[in-house]
Amino acid sequence: MTTLIENALIIPMTERDLSIRGSIFIEDGIISEVGDVHRKADETIDADGMIALPAFVNAHTHLPMVLMRNYKDTCENLQDWLSEIFPIEDKLDDEDIYQASRLGCAELIESGCTVFADMYFLAWNTVKAVREAGMRGIIGQTFMNDEADAEFRIREIAPRILEAIGDSDMLRLDAAVHAVYTATPGCYVRASEWAREMGVMLNTHLAETQKEADDCIRTYGKRPAELLESLGVFDAPSYAAHCVFLSDDEIQILRRHGVSAVHNPASNMKLASGIAPIRKYRESGINVALGTDGASSNNNLSMIKEMNLAALLATVSEMTPSAARPYDILEMATINGARALGLDKRIGTIEKGKEADITLISTRDANMTPLNDPFSAVVFSADRGNIDTVLCRGRRLLEGGKLLTMDREEAMRKTEERWQDILRR
Amino acid sequence: MTTLIENALIIPMTERDLSIRGSIFIEDGIISEVGDVHRKADETIDADGMIALPAFVNAHTHLPMVLMRNYKDTCENLQDWLSEIFPIEDKLDDEDIYQASRLGCAELIESGCTVFADMYFLAWNTVKAVREAGMRGIIGQTFMNDEADAEFRIREIAPRILEAIGDSDMLRLDAAVHAVYTATPGCYVRASEWAREMGVMLNTHLAETQKEADDCIRTYGKRPAELLESLGVFDAPSYAAHCVFLSDDEIQILRRHGVSAVHNPASNMKLASGIAPIRKYRESGINVALGTDGASSNNNLSMIKEMNLAALLATVSEMTPSAARPYDILEMATINGARALGLDKRIGTIEKGKEADITLISTRDANMTPLNDPFSAVVFSADRGNIDTVLCRGRRLLEGGKLLTMDREEAMRKTEERWQDILRR
Repeated sequence: MTTLIENALIIPMTERDLSIRGSIFIEDGIISEVGDVHRKADETIDADGMIALPAFVNAHTHLPMVLMRNYKDTCENLQDWLSEIFPIEDKLDDEDIYQASRLGCAELIESGCTVFADMYFLAWNTVKAVREAGMRGIIGQTFMNDEADAEFRIREIAPRILEAIGDSDMLRLDAAVHAVYTATPGCYVRASEWAREMGVMLNTHLAETQKEADDCIRTYGKRPAELLESLGVFDAPSYAAHCVFLSDDEIQILRRHGVSAVHNPASNMKLASGIAPIRKYRESGINVALGTDGASSNNNLSMIKEMNLAALLATVSEMTPSAARPYDILEMATINGARALGLDKRIGTIEKGKEADITLISTRDANMTPLNDPFSAVVFSADRGNIDTVLCRGRRLLEGGKLLTMDREEAMRKTEERWQDILRR
Repeated sequence: MTTLIENALIIPMTERDLSIRGSIFIEDGIISEVGDVHRKADETIDADGMIALPAFVNAHTHLPMVLMRNYKDTCENLQDWLSEIFPIEDKLDDEDIYQASRLGCAELIESGCTVFADMYFLAWNTVKAVREAGMRGIIGQTFMNDEADAEFRIREIAPRILEAIGDSDMLRLDAAVHAVYTATPGCYVRASEWAREMGVMLNTHLAETQKEADDCIRTYGKRPAELLESLGVFDAPSYAAHCVFLSDDEIQILRRHGVSAVHNPASNMKLASGIAPIRKYRESGINVALGTDGASSNNNLSMIKEMNLAALLATVSEMTPSAARPYDILEMATINGARALGLDKRIGTIEKGKEADITLISTRDANMTPLNDPFSAVVFSADRGNIDTVLCRGRRLLEGGKLLTMDREEAMRKTEERWQDILRR
């Protein structure tokens, strides 16, 4: 099976500010030629008037939390909000998670994304939804509480998720430890050991709020990243969400261990957590990726909106647009995300040998005319409405803005029904 | 002619956090009933699954600057950027402004807006475009330079714009003075006199950057709003864009004179101008409206994106979500905008006697499911893709996301052609 994407304005993300007018040839899901292509394919996509980018990598989310979108939106901060959310989460069942995950997959694909790193419960249901949607998922084996709880989860829960994943190479189960304020050192250590045993990565929330840092110092005499390093947690390849309040020493810890920071600007703004200094992180040699966080603290899953926020917030917080140029932001949303998740040999750029995860963005819309600068146009002008086509390993998931792999109306209706039922439980 | 909008979730913006399930009855463009309506109309719009809001008021823009969208996006700050933009503006002709204004109208309508306050050149062309699009426009008679130049504009330019407006009550020509760094005191005084003579309002950029404030103090011994007050400029009813750097005394000046502040978060972030403290302004009794600024410093004209930015930026900059609740933001985008432009007796709410400028926002989309809180949903979850229908004085401009009153493809093509031609001039 071969596919030719022709007449595109390709932003391959292989070289700074590079764009190419040309074609992309895909053979069995793998990119085999980029640029001037003179071959016929089984199917041809005319991408005239479209920008071709590597599909976005949403490096931090809690997919089933679409259920709680716009719920309890009046909380003062992260801790207050979690105290509203946790009792709801205790009530969720398999079908809730499955339907909400389907809806989340729809939302991700509609905004140009083919892979996400998740952290949530009953995750075999999310695996099922991701598989049906035809996208990729880095699923989290969530860890919280103490070491004994970690053992329980490794013994009782992880096998069930792994069974759902089977031999799929589009899905992977990472160790996802919630945070230093919800998981003990013993829990972190056990999760990290398990990640190394399994040959997977470790995902955690890190330094999201000032309170987290202060409490960690009070409890452990160390800042969050210092604590995790001292425990050997980062001996597993790791990525950490939020990273709003890292000290200079902690920045060096992340750099030394190759831990990626996943920036979540909407969530950090909305929950009044703070502003992550992403330029400083980048200049310190940390790989900075981008994520939406869950839809209940954002309140959507659009990476294209997240890019816009990341660029504007970095610019105003540092009072210079050089804090985050459009190309820097595109890197965060594509190749840096792939690198954070250990997928950069497979996806994250448009080049020969990579799997064909590609998003086509229409420039034939009022908000994209004239184009002038394609990098700025994607980061500053575009929105979900410009996402035309999404391919995942060469397969079309979205075309003309319409989902091909799932019934989105049904996913919306079922999710709404589940949510109304949850409120009554 | 009567129109019934039925089955809507109406946010009338007449009372804090009020939403009503019901219908809106429109007679000859005027809202005559809201709530339980038991009458037949000539045409019926089924708004099941939609939120009905007053159409958005974009209280500050430079519509034809869609031409320069994403052009020279690498400038360090406002002054550098203006030095790139001004030479381009010198080359613009009537047809450029007309086509760009058409495109701008398309973009405004597609994002749920029916009225905007503009400041640009050759504005009779914008009048023509607005009229054809079927929307409203507060057009600016731009003033810059000195008093003699103001006299010239009043004598030679304003009559031409006024002729284009004719007896339309959907259009108005305000005095739009660029800024204290581009217009002399004599220019401001003459423009303000003219506004009073004409019975219109005065629009100006105010306190956009720290540099503007510093330079004003150096030149005039006064801060920008102090200078304008001392000149009697605010004796004309006024609204001022940006207002990033107002001192406490200047806040009191705006309050005393009833001058509205128009918040432009995207532009202020993108040009590294700063963060306007909108909570402080609101709590000081200033009417705060919202605007996108021109598409070349945003880089789009979506009020729905601007609302999202305003909410998130206020929250993170004050480190509390109470800095700007969703309802506060919706007020800024609707009734406060109408009040800023002196249109609040006619539009800005959905209530009996008001003209029917109404936007219907679909909640039957992945990014809006479940709805939970309609105020949060519009401000935090929605994007342009959810804007379904827009009515302006009862007339449908947009339906199912499609423009009814103009050929958007042609507007895009022509604008692109003009822009390529401008670059060659």
